[in-house]
Amino acid sequence: MNSTRDIEALIDAMAKLPGLGPRSARRAVLHLIRKRALLMQPLADLMGQVATTARECLNCGNVGTTDICDICASEKRANGQICVVEDVADLWAMERGHAFKGRYHVLGGTLSALDQVGPEQLRIPRLIDRVETEQVTEVILALNATVDGQTTAHYIADQLEGRVTLTSLAQGVPIGGELDYLDDGTIAAALNARKSI
Amino acid sequence: MNSTRDIEALIDAMAKLPGLGPRSARRAVLHLIRKRALLMQPLADLMGQVATTARECLNCGNVGTTDICDICASEKRANGQICVVEDVADLWAMERGHAFKGRYHVLGGTLSALDQVGPEQLRIPRLIDRVETEQVTEVILALNATVDGQTTAHYIADQLEGRVTLTSLAQGVPIGGELDYLDDGTIAAALNARKSI
Repeated sequence: MNSTRDIEALIDAMAKLPGLGPRSARRAVLHLIRKRALLMQPLADLMGQVATTARECLNCGNVGTTDICDICASEKRANGQICVVEDVADLWAMERGHAFKGRYHVLGGTLSALDQVGPEQLRIPRLIDRVETEQVTEVILALNATVDGQTTAHYIADQLEGRVTLTSLAQGVPIGGELDYLDDGTIAAALNARKSI
Repeated sequence: MNSTRDIEALIDAMAKLPGLGPRSARRAVLHLIRKRALLMQPLADLMGQVATTARECLNCGNVGTTDICDICASEKRANGQICVVEDVADLWAMERGHAFKGRYHVLGGTLSALDQVGPEQLRIPRLIDRVETEQVTEVILALNATVDGQTTAHYIADQLEGRVTLTSLAQGVPIGGELDYLDDGTIAAALNARKSI
């Protein structure tokens, strides 16, 4: 099938996206072809535009279309707080919470001896720089509650100890969570951190 | 967030694809941004190209990048057989089977009184034309085993009766299927169509 080569190449490319396989890529491409003027052309244009303009913020590692991201550039955000996250996806998740009004620092991963990821491969030196140069009063470690995440949090806490207030996200029962479905560690953490009503 | 407007618009557009929601669209876009030179730009180019060149075959309704699709144009395919399918996805599924060497006719849906889809909205008149002009000896109705699919099959069979041999796909136990997990209708159909070993 020669003239459908582009269509097949497109399906193959789409199938490589996380969360899509060959079957769902075929469905998506067929859907796009059916609505090619309304949906496919705008999506292609948008994707081409983002591919050329997207970059990482030189300051914090967030993804944006400018050298300094909107959050770093915004004057409305509090200067004194930096929330350290592993990943841009975690930053987006924090932003959806609408609770944090400070600035972020995206590490770009976690320390991992096995994968040979040291502090230099992450943005840890840049974080220490920022703590020294931007009048930071608090660093919030919002790293994932995995072994690698917690190792990284400990390392950063070691590096910054004494220079700044260090906090981490509270652990406990999620909103809407049912005790019966929670793991033992979470229940123990929630009990230890209980508060008076 | 002004400068990330394009990124957000891209996530929204991706989230509209079948099989993707807001969360998986965010993951996919973040993955693309990380590999923007290697993956995102080629995908955008390919998508733009397909958006401009993709069209439906004037003869059979298959999707391709030429007015007459590869299957209709190919001299290697048998002229005498037409396999009637609802949808391009069904045509692709048949082609993956590598068993059919004739040509196709894509209806573009099924008859449906509720949705006001009559024979004129599908490619049924064109199918009757083709049977008359293309020396067709057999029409294989490979429509889905749903109520609408079977209604459409009956209608087409009525229209073509006497002019051509009409067949439909066999019904029975799928390869690798377990009797215990099959519905009663399939088991009954497989029993009725039993064959000697």
